[in-house]
Amino acid sequence: MKIIELKETITASNDRDAQNLREELRESGALLINLMASPGAGKTTLLDRTIRDIGTRHRIGIIEADIDSDVDARHLAALGVSAVQAHTDGMCHMDAGMTRAALEELGYGDKDLIFLENVGNLICPAEFDTGAGKNVMILSVPEGDDKPLKYPLMFRTSDVLLITKTDAACIFDFDFDKCEERARKLNPDIRIFRVCAKNGEGMEAWEDWLEEQVRGWRA
Amino acid sequence: MKIIELKETITASNDRDAQNLREELRESGALLINLMASPGAGKTTLLDRTIRDIGTRHRIGIIEADIDSDVDARHLAALGVSAVQAHTDGMCHMDAGMTRAALEELGYGDKDLIFLENVGNLICPAEFDTGAGKNVMILSVPEGDDKPLKYPLMFRTSDVLLITKTDAACIFDFDFDKCEERARKLNPDIRIFRVCAKNGEGMEAWEDWLEEQVRGWRA
Repeated sequence: MKIIELKETITASNDRDAQNLREELRESGALLINLMASPGAGKTTLLDRTIRDIGTRHRIGIIEADIDSDVDARHLAALGVSAVQAHTDGMCHMDAGMTRAALEELGYGDKDLIFLENVGNLICPAEFDTGAGKNVMILSVPEGDDKPLKYPLMFRTSDVLLITKTDAACIFDFDFDKCEERARKLNPDIRIFRVCAKNGEGMEAWEDWLEEQVRGWRA
Repeated sequence: MKIIELKETITASNDRDAQNLREELRESGALLINLMASPGAGKTTLLDRTIRDIGTRHRIGIIEADIDSDVDARHLAALGVSAVQAHTDGMCHMDAGMTRAALEELGYGDKDLIFLENVGNLICPAEFDTGAGKNVMILSVPEGDDKPLKYPLMFRTSDVLLITKTDAACIFDFDFDKCEERARKLNPDIRIFRVCAKNGEGMEAWEDWLEEQVRGWRA
């Protein structure tokens, strides 16, 4: 597992860079999933369970983006997948240039599914296209069902909303229907899955969706 | 309760603006507490309980900073305190100029304790001095004890760490001692309180600290 130190890319057009990267990834057959969430929402735990469930059927790569530390990348590399830890030099998000640098370090020609675990933040990552094929966000039950009201752009830019830590619903007052209604008001096409990565509940529907995307990306 | 729309302040020196604002606040006798945390860590619930517990002994004001919505400001205004909702125009943090604009809207000459509930984000708010007398951060148990490793600047710039949602420790694997050790390694002087704003556990020690600061600020 490697650690690379990134700097923000100074470029005229992040959107164009992201589009170019997405096309290159499509040609190579690697689907990049940009996974975004608040700090501690459970991104790494979700990836851990997903890799254990479907990892043997795919050639998976992981990019962990953090301001500091490499605990998550080490954790996932121990599952046998290729992993790169990207340090963002204090930056609160990944952009397309940073993602490209991390992908080159990881190598993507031999992968069919790559997860970019973005910096823990519900705001800034939503503003920068990374070049990913799909954007997936996590909202964990302890964060509350009102988050679509406060962080609308994240819900608008995500293809999928994973509501996680559903096992904590017994002690937190979380209205699933209200949360989903608020998310769909911002983004009528958003796919929503309720999952608990810890006990596995709901993971199958999410993983079915994921494998369907991998097949569609290659075709 | 008012809603104001803010823009980022373009200024040569946020640090100098913040220092000027802090001195003006000290002269007027108003202690400004900058409350920072991830989305959904429980900032508003903590303020709700704090206001109910010590609100009658102080002239309290609230600034709620969010990208969108006014649910939190309406909630706290209903407790009888002055509240202003500041919309940050998509910005992921408050700076000193934005804080000054919100304070002028709120009025601070007649207050002795003002809470700025910063935008939910563990990264960017730590980079901008708001002019507050004290910086207080929340880390909630469901977020995990590894957060000091990943968001070191937030822990370094905070005078107080409130570990909240302690009632959730029964279902989350959170090592309090390890978390506190990691926080103190970054910031040996940080004061740490373990609290549950929902059931009131541990709130007294936090509120005692707060009232001591109000007295010290006036002196």
